[in-house]
Amino acid sequence: MTRAPEALAKSLGYQFNDPGLLEAALTHRSAGSGNNERLEFLGDAVLGHVVAQWLYSACPEASEGQLSRLRASLVKRETLADIARGLALGDYLHLGSGELKSGGFRRDSILADALEAVLGGIVLDGGFEICRDCIQRLYAGRIDKLSVADELKDPKTRLQEYLQARKLALPVYAMTHISGKAHHQQFSVECRIEELDVVAAGVGGSRRKAEQSAAVNMLKRLGVDG
Amino acid sequence: MTRAPEALAKSLGYQFNDPGLLEAALTHRSAGSGNNERLEFLGDAVLGHVVAQWLYSACPEASEGQLSRLRASLVKRETLADIARGLALGDYLHLGSGELKSGGFRRDSILADALEAVLGGIVLDGGFEICRDCIQRLYAGRIDKLSVADELKDPKTRLQEYLQARKLALPVYAMTHISGKAHHQQFSVECRIEELDVVAAGVGGSRRKAEQSAAVNMLKRLGVDG
Repeated sequence: MTRAPEALAKSLGYQFNDPGLLEAALTHRSAGSGNNERLEFLGDAVLGHVVAQWLYSACPEASEGQLSRLRASLVKRETLADIARGLALGDYLHLGSGELKSGGFRRDSILADALEAVLGGIVLDGGFEICRDCIQRLYAGRIDKLSVADELKDPKTRLQEYLQARKLALPVYAMTHISGKAHHQQFSVECRIEELDVVAAGVGGSRRKAEQSAAVNMLKRLGVDG
Repeated sequence: MTRAPEALAKSLGYQFNDPGLLEAALTHRSAGSGNNERLEFLGDAVLGHVVAQWLYSACPEASEGQLSRLRASLVKRETLADIARGLALGDYLHLGSGELKSGGFRRDSILADALEAVLGGIVLDGGFEICRDCIQRLYAGRIDKLSVADELKDPKTRLQEYLQARKLALPVYAMTHISGKAHHQQFSVECRIEELDVVAAGVGGSRRKAEQSAAVNMLKRLGVDG
């Protein structure tokens, strides 16, 4: 029933030296021992590294928090399952009979885990550089689908756009406190969204920075940012 | 006040081509912009990858869960701060005046973050292989301090040792259910610790596997495993 993995090697652009590694990567735990759980652990780590380094270079202006959020959206289950479907990975999986009957080969979690396991297999079999290149091919074009531009907008702009999209009035920023001596002042600002009855505070070395900080906290309170 | 980073290069066993990267890695956010937060993001990812691959090879019998726990203990803040202290990393840090006064150069979080940032700098400056070798040098001997052997013991043994160390009676395992036809039977087992009034269940394709699974769940309930 399962397709022979040669075709998969072609779509991955990588031919395994040790075909047993690819077999293991395609074996769900429901199919017994020799399954892909350990390889998934490894693949997840490699993928996290490759995407981190790629974002670091591609987004020189992004903060650590922005880099984290961008990476999370690139390595989340849905994204991985989507890439796995592009490879028709479900056709190559070894599943136990229960998972087969319930259509496990279509499930996001099983597809995402298997893709990570395949990447784990590639790094063991071909080394880091080859695995990195393979990840880059798999993700080609995907950065455009991501709202990188959105993520890199400043927080006040993002908050404004979020509210406008929901036909809500713009937030009101108000200075609540200034402390410290001249040249070392700390500004405290409050950001208020009247209609939602939510307030978030921010501090910073300038009024502008304090407002951005309040917007960051408001985006968190609204659940927009993690 | 801060020591010149040349001595650090020596203890790291790596000379930066771009000294600016090392400077940035040593700059805490309290000292202003150009700080180490982005490099820390990158270094954390590289470290996670290197340690994962290393454990994968070193512990061929470890399950994915065991690998995860071993890695967590190797990359946790306390471990990183300990390694950072071995490098006297605190002596090289650039901190804002507030952090300086409050002894930030001694704080685990600041030391751990800076070490990750230094690793992020090395991977950018020297590439993956060089960074991996550096991580291996930094961790040399540390695997012995870890309770790898403990972690790799089977769950029933670990549970037993945990209870004995606390002078508690051994757990009682009892079969509660068998389902399925011959050769495809599923065994359900209950693990009970009378004195603590805790019960955990497990299932498996054999009585032994079901008991191990119940022990795994009991270790989680007791907070021994994450």
